[in-house]
Amino acid sequence: MPRLVRTKIEFEGRIEERDIVIEGDDIPAWGADASLELVGRPVPRVDGRERAGGTATYTHDVVLPGMLHGAILRCPHAHARIRAIDTSRAESLPGVRAVLSGANAPTIKWYQGRSFLFDSDLRFPGDEVAAVAADSAAVAGEALNLIEVDYEVLPALLDPEEALKPGAIQVFPTGNLIEGGPDLYARGNVEAGFAQADVVVEGTFRTQGVVHHSLETHGSVAAWGGDGLTIWDSTQHIFGVRRQVAQCLGVPLDRVRVISHFMGGGFGSKNRAGKYTVIAALLARATGRPVRVVLSRHEESVATGLRPASVQRLRIGARRDGTLVAIDLWGVSNGGAYRDMRTPLGGPAKELFRCPNVRTEVYTVYTHTGTAAAFRAPGFTEGTFALESLLDALAEKLNVDPLELRVRNHVGHDQVLNRQYTAKHLLECYRAGAAAMGWERRKSLPGTGTRRRGLGMASQIWGGGGGPPAYARVRLNADGTAEVVAGTQDIGTGARTALAQIAAEALGLPLDRVTFHLGDTEYPYAPLSAGSQTIASVGPAVRMAATEARHHLLEVAGTMLEALPEDLTITNGRIHVRGVPERSVAVAEVTGKLNNFTIEGRGFRAPNPDGATIRTFGAQFAEVEVDVETGEVRVLRVVAVHDVGRIINPQQYASQIQGGIIQGLGLALLEDQVVDPETGAVLTLGFDTYALPKMEQIPAIDVLTLDAVDAAANNLGAKGAGEPPIIPTAAAIANAVSHAVGARVTALPLTPPRVLAALGEARSSGRGLGSGAGAP
Amino acid sequence: MPRLVRTKIEFEGRIEERDIVIEGDDIPAWGADASLELVGRPVPRVDGRERAGGTATYTHDVVLPGMLHGAILRCPHAHARIRAIDTSRAESLPGVRAVLSGANAPTIKWYQGRSFLFDSDLRFPGDEVAAVAADSAAVAGEALNLIEVDYEVLPALLDPEEALKPGAIQVFPTGNLIEGGPDLYARGNVEAGFAQADVVVEGTFRTQGVVHHSLETHGSVAAWGGDGLTIWDSTQHIFGVRRQVAQCLGVPLDRVRVISHFMGGGFGSKNRAGKYTVIAALLARATGRPVRVVLSRHEESVATGLRPASVQRLRIGARRDGTLVAIDLWGVSNGGAYRDMRTPLGGPAKELFRCPNVRTEVYTVYTHTGTAAAFRAPGFTEGTFALESLLDALAEKLNVDPLELRVRNHVGHDQVLNRQYTAKHLLECYRAGAAAMGWERRKSLPGTGTRRRGLGMASQIWGGGGGPPAYARVRLNADGTAEVVAGTQDIGTGARTALAQIAAEALGLPLDRVTFHLGDTEYPYAPLSAGSQTIASVGPAVRMAATEARHHLLEVAGTMLEALPEDLTITNGRIHVRGVPERSVAVAEVTGKLNNFTIEGRGFRAPNPDGATIRTFGAQFAEVEVDVETGEVRVLRVVAVHDVGRIINPQQYASQIQGGIIQGLGLALLEDQVVDPETGAVLTLGFDTYALPKMEQIPAIDVLTLDAVDAAANNLGAKGAGEPPIIPTAAAIANAVSHAVGARVTALPLTPPRVLAALGEARSSGRGLGSGAGAP
Repeated sequence: MPRLVRTKIEFEGRIEERDIVIEGDDIPAWGADASLELVGRPVPRVDGRERAGGTATYTHDVVLPGMLHGAILRCPHAHARIRAIDTSRAESLPGVRAVLSGANAPTIKWYQGRSFLFDSDLRFPGDEVAAVAADSAAVAGEALNLIEVDYEVLPALLDPEEALKPGAIQVFPTGNLIEGGPDLYARGNVEAGFAQADVVVEGTFRTQGVVHHSLETHGSVAAWGGDGLTIWDSTQHIFGVRRQVAQCLGVPLDRVRVISHFMGGGFGSKNRAGKYTVIAALLARATGRPVRVVLSRHEESVATGLRPASVQRLRIGARRDGTLVAIDLWGVSNGGAYRDMRTPLGGPAKELFRCPNVRTEVYTVYTHTGTAAAFRAPGFTEGTFALESLLDALAEKLNVDPLELRVRNHVGHDQVLNRQYTAKHLLECYRAGAAAMGWERRKSLPGTGTRRRGLGMASQIWGGGGGPPAYARVRLNADGTAEVVAGTQDIGTGARTALAQIAAEALGLPLDRVTFHLGDTEYPYAPLSAGSQTIASVGPAVRMAATEARHHLLEVAGTMLEALPEDLTITNGRIHVRGVPERSVAVAEVTGKLNNFTIEGRGFRAPNPDGATIRTFGAQFAEVEVDVETGEVRVLRVVAVHDVGRIINPQQYASQIQGGIIQGLGLALLEDQVVDPETGAVLTLGFDTYALPKMEQIPAIDVLTLDAVDAAANNLGAKGAGEPPIIPTAAAIANAVSHAVGARVTALPLTPPRVLAALGEARSSGRGLGSGAGAP
Repeated sequence: MPRLVRTKIEFEGRIEERDIVIEGDDIPAWGADASLELVGRPVPRVDGRERAGGTATYTHDVVLPGMLHGAILRCPHAHARIRAIDTSRAESLPGVRAVLSGANAPTIKWYQGRSFLFDSDLRFPGDEVAAVAADSAAVAGEALNLIEVDYEVLPALLDPEEALKPGAIQVFPTGNLIEGGPDLYARGNVEAGFAQADVVVEGTFRTQGVVHHSLETHGSVAAWGGDGLTIWDSTQHIFGVRRQVAQCLGVPLDRVRVISHFMGGGFGSKNRAGKYTVIAALLARATGRPVRVVLSRHEESVATGLRPASVQRLRIGARRDGTLVAIDLWGVSNGGAYRDMRTPLGGPAKELFRCPNVRTEVYTVYTHTGTAAAFRAPGFTEGTFALESLLDALAEKLNVDPLELRVRNHVGHDQVLNRQYTAKHLLECYRAGAAAMGWERRKSLPGTGTRRRGLGMASQIWGGGGGPPAYARVRLNADGTAEVVAGTQDIGTGARTALAQIAAEALGLPLDRVTFHLGDTEYPYAPLSAGSQTIASVGPAVRMAATEARHHLLEVAGTMLEALPEDLTITNGRIHVRGVPERSVAVAEVTGKLNNFTIEGRGFRAPNPDGATIRTFGAQFAEVEVDVETGEVRVLRVVAVHDVGRIINPQQYASQIQGGIIQGLGLALLEDQVVDPETGAVLTLGFDTYALPKMEQIPAIDVLTLDAVDAAANNLGAKGAGEPPIIPTAAAIANAVSHAVGARVTALPLTPPRVLAALGEARSSGRGLGSGAGAP
């Protein structure tokens, strides 16, 4: 019988007490010694054929009878006010079914009430002005050109550092500071710490704006049925979209259904409903027909969020033996026009290394640029670049091996909350990664002519422990097949496969006898697929549900085999009496006997353990070759070792790590949302101008599997691997570049001009061009 | 925690012991004195706007991208063998995408292995020969004409009485008897009973073949997705269709999904998947595109089942005071080509009246005619016509008031299983109906000239108590709305509304805050919507699920209101401390506080009480006017009183009763599937030749609501009202006709020629034309 408990819930670093309804007791974790048949095996994706064969239905593929095509007119200016808008020519274009703008759309608040769905004040180039529904996408596009808008162009604030200055243009009357002030944190006494330091290093680190550029652009299809609204959405959170759309439209939650069966990537940019979602719903309501609004790659480049540019001034003090005594971070992150949260740039500084005195002061500011969004390990990726770069510089200054410096500053407990970690295997990551990379080669790397080689590394801390709420159900069918139902999403990560493996393992069924239904708000609640939390949140609920179903199955089988349920075991779809192999029965025989009496189990995500912090850790090692004449950086190899608990599927795990590293390499070397400094217009509007990593630029990537089961974290011992791999990559590459050429680039991406400039500066100060040979 | 129990399950008169998994304890029933806000109120249908406004999606309305249209070629002969089939001309017709026949289709057994999906032996006019999928329905129809079939026409057996004779044509090598012999039942010693009788009456009663003719014809849309098959089906049992289709196609159950959101009537003819369903799936698989196969009204007239014609020879013996001492029934029912069950013609004779000596012997036979199907109270409707007609004749013979005779033979317990009824209020039905009809007028009805009036009545017994398995879930959303999920069907009866009322009542929410999701095999298992079992099976599961959710809600509310959950009550969406009205909180405030922590309840249908029989009862009274010159019968008024337990929604209840009576009137006076006695061809192929009741023929119908809560039956005290109203109508009308003109018609429908013939016969025997005045 479910019951009410008061429990602590941790989300995004905040801990809240909540009353929650839980549905039973958690089951014991699969320990490190558990004998598992499917979990831990590199089985191919259960939906691989669908995905590869083109039969998987993504939001982009949804076609409904009578469906119209929507398109959105966007403001070309960084800051403007609409004096007048005339949609009459667009409305009279044949094939146009509806035109929505501030003139006729309902007043719907957006961006936490700071703006509207259609605002007359426009605050970034890309801000939504009007929308059209037409018989075809071509007609809709043509209609946009016929909408006449009289803009009053206003002065724009583009630079986040400018935003902090007195007299700066104010994006909102309440000022330019998101959440009204900096994110402040202090532990110990940072000035006293620096006073004790033998060595102090400092630097200013800059990271660029980086666009998520999921392969499936943002989009929604909306259809009103007799009893409400159905939305197919390319989203990381169907339940969140449901809630947001219901609120915007004033429709009760029970009348909104959101579906996302297949999804082509989000990386944090699809954590919420977009304006396009609500626009699709409004256009569908206005026309009485389904409406598809799918953004173009151009729109994706300007209006769907980005990893915000940051500036970080970081100072680290250490004793002569390398022991850290003070870390001081001041940072500013560009929230763009409408971001509502401060970027956690300070996360790594607070927690990654042992240090008694830490202070962080991070501002996130409004500017008249595209709105920042969460992007795979937001803040931590930028923060780690600064922290791990400067730590490398400290090692150099102390003439200590950089890895050795990290080992000396390793910390076994959570210094922020002052409690234990459920598990931490970072030292094993260091050891295994260094061995695989041949870290000892660092002292004598071959540098041939103008091409210098270097080795660098960096480490990572992140969440990924997940937590409640998440629910799942498992039903056994009469033919011995099982259906798992959970309203989670598979955003491309392979969640469907990994969660099916968990269910099949718990049920003792072959994987092909288990179907996983997800991506529908008619299913049990599951959280946002973000924060590396899906496996660690939904997975334990699936296991619990499957275990309950298994118990019932064994009860029935027990009556057939004349044995106690606890004496039975299930392997590969057959139930045996333990030790008496000839007394057995097929699962399908038991379920078939029950006919239509359902065996169903339900599971929920039990609360996390009290008083312990769940974190993931890891280290990456990069080997680079730098052309000192051209400044070109080539990454030759990356070795990644992450401590993410039990690995459910090593093949998918490797994909996830490789993907993170490739995205990290893009951040390190290539990607950059370039904005015209005069107008604020985005100049990198597609893949011709926005440089994503190409196959030829992708290094050899060795993914080591640590499989460091964290049995204290949840009943699987598993944590998330989505974000960890991107966090240390840029820092490891930057450190390798510095090692290769003896000059440190402190701004991302590490473009040839920047490398050459750093090299020139280092040469002029008598350093630089030291290959591995000369470095400690 | 769910647990395994051994319990007795009753279905279609059979009692089986089964091990079932139950999920908790049942909750106490709402007694007759329960104070209910919504249950028992005539609220309008929750989906009325959708149904009336045309936005409800029936299977016929499903349109999928790229969907093809299927059509089926049917055998024109009653009995034939395919010598050769040539589909090449059809295949080469432009727009034709696939042609299936016995030549290329997989061998799929059908009709319990007695035939195949495409058999070369064809056993009724309408038997499936081939199928086509084409770009349009027109092309598909044209293609059928191009299929050349060389039939060897064979001698056919058309008459069910012939089927029993030695030397009859054998429809199957195993003979013509369905289930291999008659359905035999005996209680006491019927010959000894007749020996004690003072009076014996006997008669031969004939009922005709009657087609269901649901407004939505049979049809399916099938689409193969990457992970399996989805079928939209106009069905009374989505889970049954899923199982049948999965077995036919060799696809695991977890890969087949069946959807039926709205359904335009079935009356028993849609209890199973049709060949069209599997044909749609095969054509879709062959073409790689969705395929729609929707039958025409013509096909509906020949190939989707019917209430089978019957012949019943009935003999009743009674003492002079009217006490029944013996009932002997011999019957034959026409099972058509492929029926697999015997028709329970003997049901009423066994159980309706007290009688110590009863014998029934009912044959159901194969013939080369359309296959019989369950049709609203199968067997009982025909059996009641015979039994209640002959009882009326007995009353006449004894010179006893027919109602008084029934009262004298009232029985309080189940004579077949020799146990108590959970409740029986038939005497109240008699009393209330007689009062409303003015039964005392029977003695002195005005008969003017050639139009004679008469009053007749008949009674009814049927199941309707439902039982497990049935499951439901209820989820409370953050905004205080609720979603109820159960894989049942609303076949037009209003189940969606009544079940939503139950959930809203249990939750204390207004009805518009509750949405009921049904008609999808992804939802919890629910049984066939037939046997009047939906409310009594799914309803208690819904109530249990809602009650569980309510408990959790009150637990959380208790912490907010600082009160014990048991001291709280919910009214109209607000939770109050009992006796302290100012201490209250809105449901939405509680659910909102929980944010995404789901409050979900699950419920199941608990086993029926041991050792008691659940039945519905009722009586109908008809007033008719008979034109003795034309033989035309006009029904002026019907009064109906049924004992079906608690009435959830009086308005829907009245609709159900009216619908049953109208269908019963069609059976009594109009409907008749006419078959060419030479060829077996059906001559009544549509509504121009098949006479359904027209508005002008529908009498005043008074539906009295008894609301005889049956708290022993289940936690609602409710039973089913789907079938009861059709059972006594024809008998009541026939008895009224007999009363009007003093001549009894013993064959349905009571057509003018039959009335005139009976009248002529009665006149020639010195009886007849006695109006109400002359009758007892």
